[in-house]
Amino acid sequence: MDITDSVLLFLELVGTLAFSFSGAVVAIQRRLDIFGTLVLGVITAVGGGMIRDITLGVIPPMLFRRPVYVIVAAVTAAVVFALCYFRTEALEMVSGGIYSQLIGTMDSVGLGIFTVVGVSAAMQNGYANSSFLAVTVGVITGVGGGMIRDLLANRTPVVLHKQVYAVASLAGAVLYYWLLRLTSIPRFACMFIGAGIVILLRLLASHFRWDLPVVGKRGE
Amino acid sequence: MDITDSVLLFLELVGTLAFSFSGAVVAIQRRLDIFGTLVLGVITAVGGGMIRDITLGVIPPMLFRRPVYVIVAAVTAAVVFALCYFRTEALEMVSGGIYSQLIGTMDSVGLGIFTVVGVSAAMQNGYANSSFLAVTVGVITGVGGGMIRDLLANRTPVVLHKQVYAVASLAGAVLYYWLLRLTSIPRFACMFIGAGIVILLRLLASHFRWDLPVVGKRGE
Amino acid sequence: MDITDSVLLFLELVGTLAFSFSGAVVAIQRRLDIFGTLVLGVITAVGGGMIRDITLGVIPPMLFRRPVYVIVAAVTAAVVFALCYFRTEALEMVSGGIYSQLIGTMDSVGLGIFTVVGVSAAMQNGYANSSFLAVTVGVITGVGGGMIRDLLANRTPVVLHKQVYAVASLAGAVLYYWLLRLTSIPRFACMFIGAGIVILLRLLASHFRWDLPVVGKRGE
Repeated sequence: MDITDSVLLFLELVGTLAFSFSGAVVAIQRRLDIFGTLVLGVITAVGGGMIRDITLGVIPPMLFRRPVYVIVAAVTAAVVFALCYFRTEALEMVSGGIYSQLIGTMDSVGLGIFTVVGVSAAMQNGYANSSFLAVTVGVITGVGGGMIRDLLANRTPVVLHKQVYAVASLAGAVLYYWLLRLTSIPRFACMFIGAGIVILLRLLASHFRWDLPVVGKRGE
Repeated sequence: MDITDSVLLFLELVGTLAFSFSGAVVAIQRRLDIFGTLVLGVITAVGGGMIRDITLGVIPPMLFRRPVYVIVAAVTAAVVFALCYFRTEALEMVSGGIYSQLIGTMDSVGLGIFTVVGVSAAMQNGYANSSFLAVTVGVITGVGGGMIRDLLANRTPVVLHKQVYAVASLAGAVLYYWLLRLTSIPRFACMFIGAGIVILLRLLASHFRWDLPVVGKRGE
Repeated sequence: MDITDSVLLFLELVGTLAFSFSGAVVAIQRRLDIFGTLVLGVITAVGGGMIRDITLGVIPPMLFRRPVYVIVAAVTAAVVFALCYFRTEALEMVSGGIYSQLIGTMDSVGLGIFTVVGVSAAMQNGYANSSFLAVTVGVITGVGGGMIRDLLANRTPVVLHKQVYAVASLAGAVLYYWLLRLTSIPRFACMFIGAGIVILLRLLASHFRWDLPVVGKRGE
């Protein structure tokens, strides 16, 4: 396992942890019990990768073949649940004003990482020269997990209403793809840059509440 | 590219446009911003085809390989958004009484076209003699995009509550399949007939508000 | 067709019937018309198997190749609808206190059966030695149909809020897998034991309303 593979696995596990965290916090807010929290955490974490693998013909999807993803996601959700259950201050963090920032930050980290992981998977499965395919698969991998989480939890999917959500993923995917193709920057460094730009764009958009055009303030 | 292939591509692009239009209008009604509108338009337009291709083993699905579908869908959604944003009369059309008819009509056009496109795809991928498979894949392709749109927008899926929705798709799929198998009518003509009958059935059902049995008017 | 195959087909049909029943009752409660009831019944019944087959690379999924599943599901939903429509006492059962028990019981039967069917399908498709894969595919097959039903009907998915729902499926999948691997009990008997334990766990959990930890009774 060379450094790139190690970095890829490391990033995947961080992304799994981040998305499972966001799923678990949503579950706790919804007053789900311990099992519901585990299920939502795991589905959020592995959902995007499952769609990616089915799309690329990686059958059965990785999540079924390498238990590590499900295990990391389940442990993360269990720890979040336990913290909130036993520590009042953790619960207050989750319930209080910091709540949506917590989900938002973790969700952005997952979005950034899974975007570049998706592009990587497409390129390694024979589509290194298909820019459109690699980028689109990257975006779907990035937004998939959060979309499933929000559907199950009956929230408006972040991909539809958060500022520059899919666009941040798109920017990171394009940047990562072309850095790899056009420069000699090592692949693991490109990954950090690609994922970093997604996270940065999301955090900037959240922090400054970039206002985007909305139709119908006048109508109806 | 013979005439049938040209007609097929033409129909696919019209279906893509129609479904993206319906997704964009739903998004504008939900007060989504410009990006949310683009995302919902694109997902509505390519969702059914993605399910169809995964089902038939066409991997990666066409939408990843031919950018034209995503581009047409994104441009359509952007134009709808811009029209409603800059032209009060367009917004009033969308907000006013004509609103649900607009979505309904575009949705019916997409339903009809994607139904026959789905049957065609199944027949061209080696299942020309499997009537049940071809028809079922056609119906799934037809109803898939609208189903995903409504799930994401948190509306009751049209396939569950609109009069003769799945049944219209089923009728068109069966008609198209058997016209092709049993008659010598050219394929592109069969497509127009098949898609046309779906659209006609949907419009008639909407216009006359065909009342179908509902249980429980008395109970509870 | 030996006895195991017969038992497998029999169980699949019972599971199809049970899930279609649960979908139809949810549809009737939602005041859907006859077609909406059929659609929800069919999707609930075949949804889990479709995810299973896509996951295992069984393309096209079985539901497209063997009409019997769709037919059994459609007939079941039609009969439930007709009973509730024409027989006041059936409607009262559905509307009254027995209502959620009816859905719950049928859903549990479907969960148990599709869990072992999913494990079986994974083992027969070359993954007999992959315990994690077989068990995970079994759980996804079991919970998939009900998850799609609840998403479409806009209910909180049972997998998130019912006591020991995914865990019951997990327990049955693990038990069935290891009974097959480690004992010489005939396969069809293992199936009944595996499905039985899922159903038993679900019914016990429902009956005794096993209370599981929930965070946040205090907070907010």
